[in-house]
Amino acid sequence: MKARIITIGDEILIGQIIDTNSAWLAGRLNDLGIGVESIVSISDTQEAIHLALGEVDSSIQLVLMTGGLGPTKDDITKHALAKWFESGWSEDQAVLNRVEQHFSLRGVIMPEVNKGQAMVPDNCIVLANENGTAPGMWFEQNGTVFISMPGVPFEMKSIFADQAVPRIQKRFVGKHIVHRTIMTQGIGESTLMEIIADWENNLGDLKLAYLPSVGSVRLRITGVSEYGEGLQERVDAQVLAALPLVEEYAYGFDEAKLEEVIGSVLKSNSLTLSTAESCTGGYISHLLTSVSGSSAYFKGSAVTYSNDAKQDVLGVDPATFEKYGAVSEQVAIQMAEGVRKKFRTDYAVSTTGIAGPDGGTAEKPVGTIWIGVSSQNGSYALKYSMGTHRERNIRKSALQAFQLIRKEVFKNLGISLKEALS
Amino acid sequence: MKARIITIGDEILIGQIIDTNSAWLAGRLNDLGIGVESIVSISDTQEAIHLALGEVDSSIQLVLMTGGLGPTKDDITKHALAKWFESGWSEDQAVLNRVEQHFSLRGVIMPEVNKGQAMVPDNCIVLANENGTAPGMWFEQNGTVFISMPGVPFEMKSIFADQAVPRIQKRFVGKHIVHRTIMTQGIGESTLMEIIADWENNLGDLKLAYLPSVGSVRLRITGVSEYGEGLQERVDAQVLAALPLVEEYAYGFDEAKLEEVIGSVLKSNSLTLSTAESCTGGYISHLLTSVSGSSAYFKGSAVTYSNDAKQDVLGVDPATFEKYGAVSEQVAIQMAEGVRKKFRTDYAVSTTGIAGPDGGTAEKPVGTIWIGVSSQNGSYALKYSMGTHRERNIRKSALQAFQLIRKEVFKNLGISLKEALS
Repeated sequence: MKARIITIGDEILIGQIIDTNSAWLAGRLNDLGIGVESIVSISDTQEAIHLALGEVDSSIQLVLMTGGLGPTKDDITKHALAKWFESGWSEDQAVLNRVEQHFSLRGVIMPEVNKGQAMVPDNCIVLANENGTAPGMWFEQNGTVFISMPGVPFEMKSIFADQAVPRIQKRFVGKHIVHRTIMTQGIGESTLMEIIADWENNLGDLKLAYLPSVGSVRLRITGVSEYGEGLQERVDAQVLAALPLVEEYAYGFDEAKLEEVIGSVLKSNSLTLSTAESCTGGYISHLLTSVSGSSAYFKGSAVTYSNDAKQDVLGVDPATFEKYGAVSEQVAIQMAEGVRKKFRTDYAVSTTGIAGPDGGTAEKPVGTIWIGVSSQNGSYALKYSMGTHRERNIRKSALQAFQLIRKEVFKNLGISLKEALS
Repeated sequence: MKARIITIGDEILIGQIIDTNSAWLAGRLNDLGIGVESIVSISDTQEAIHLALGEVDSSIQLVLMTGGLGPTKDDITKHALAKWFESGWSEDQAVLNRVEQHFSLRGVIMPEVNKGQAMVPDNCIVLANENGTAPGMWFEQNGTVFISMPGVPFEMKSIFADQAVPRIQKRFVGKHIVHRTIMTQGIGESTLMEIIADWENNLGDLKLAYLPSVGSVRLRITGVSEYGEGLQERVDAQVLAALPLVEEYAYGFDEAKLEEVIGSVLKSNSLTLSTAESCTGGYISHLLTSVSGSSAYFKGSAVTYSNDAKQDVLGVDPATFEKYGAVSEQVAIQMAEGVRKKFRTDYAVSTTGIAGPDGGTAEKPVGTIWIGVSSQNGSYALKYSMGTHRERNIRKSALQAFQLIRKEVFKNLGISLKEALS
């Protein structure tokens, strides 16, 4: 069973927005055991839409479309679909009610243009949109199902999960696909490959992929079979066999995030964390607080971008700046200790460095980052040499800071990686 | 002239990574006046790659491919291309040197597997990769140019900008396309549409698109013509005509970011800013410090996630929590005033609210956010009612905080939107 994802909108083709919908949909289809054969982004013209629909042959059983269903003039998908599927129109009272309610809840008078959203092709099944005004639509033609959804991620996701998935499950049964991913941080793709070469050569019919992103590499092990019997167990066994090889770098499975791994262990042990950020500028704090419920263990951050602020807010000794400079082991340690005291937490992590692209010296080039860690067991700081790319350095520093905190907490609690991961 | 972008990699089709390369490439092609007809993501198998290459007909003059050029076993693009273009192999000494240097610079011994990267199809032009080990490749067949680049964004971008663009410019001359985008914040798509309806109806052959994202809507005006004469002027005139209609919401043009607009006006007037963040958790600070050079005007942030921290770090009066609660006008104002004093800045902005998805009450439901502003002219706070989606609420709050600061700074300096934007 094969699916295709079609995203509609000139904003994608001119590069004005990044298509995040496709990745999300592909992930969900994968969970359902449905393979995605390709993802196609096309222009929001009737011609392009009809061309893309014409390219769907009988090898594709499911087509997911997003985009082009809003109320404004540049949105023409619905009309192109009605024409393609040779459909008439009818007003859908449920959609009209929802559109009216959408505006009345917000205390806003419904713009006239939104009325048109209640007109739907009469040979589709309407998929209700609980979060917006443009409904989803389910068409069928020659045995293939076509689902059209609005492009706003928030709306698309709930239509797909709540309305489309149950219908897809009823209609199709996919091949069995099992993925397991080991998340690693702090090692490059090719070095990782050498470390696990022997293990990789014994994978048999399982497939391995290296998925690098800034500061981390994911190792994805995939198994595919007709009936799925024993497949999960075979994949799991290989994952367990790989763990000891990557012990220094692994921190979780599948889409685990370091900030969630840390949050989970802190929370279950009633421990607290604070951060003092210079070069990461609040990014560490942002990632930590992106996790719902983080207020249970995260007390806050002092983003101290100037020396004055490091001194006033964190109590860094001004003599230290003169003697060692702001980017130094001593300042990193004083920042971590200062914020731990100020926010009264069990653990603290600090960053001070030169994120770039400018501001380096011969002695301390761009990319020089000190990361400090403080707990009741003492404090230390480590130096990292990264590149000249500001955004990457910020991201890499944050992940490295998380990894240091994770190791420190695990060490103090006597938790091994394997028991934490299994 | 038409281009197609093909991204290669199962990690995209299973939704494990978001394809950001395509958007970046599409934007750059657009700058060159080359329209992107479609973006296609396919599997990293020889079969899928050959199928996609076979679908390129003579209406496409340029094909950009990314992904599948790394050293590890799952990367097979290079071999599929050599076969498709019926090419032999040769070792490229320049590539070999670069690969060896890449590792020696990092003090790492080159893994054996990287040697294979120096083998290149002998009928392609090698495009040097200054940031990594996998070279780009330029093939030609039946008048169409095919450019293959690695999938790591950082490497791909420099190969494309430094190696491919000059060759593309020499080879092709595109149609003239002019885009101008007005960035707005704080107004929904359909309300915006009503406000500018008359203006939109008079756009003639220019095209308008509404591009909504969380907390902001972009209005993109596009003109296309054969020779381009007078095109920019016609687009600019329409943009200027629209500005007075959206004065309350507009903050810049094209890909302007609110944090850059603020940074620019603060910097050129030697003014400084600090932030006190509760519900935004460091995100405001992160966006501000993502701008290179922000240390000139941004002094830092106190991310105070607990009441204790609000009191200890910012000096919020504990009686205020009891009387009004942490999510209140009074606390927002005290946070803004406290951080302005602590970090000794001209301006300060604060957030306190319930980002969700949990934690609301009947009186203060999830999505209730107070944003405070403080300057030498006084302090105030405004209340916003957002939704229940944590990530969206954080993003929307940050953008709203920026808009309030922008308006406050503009007002105090006596700058009008139009003069700031033109």
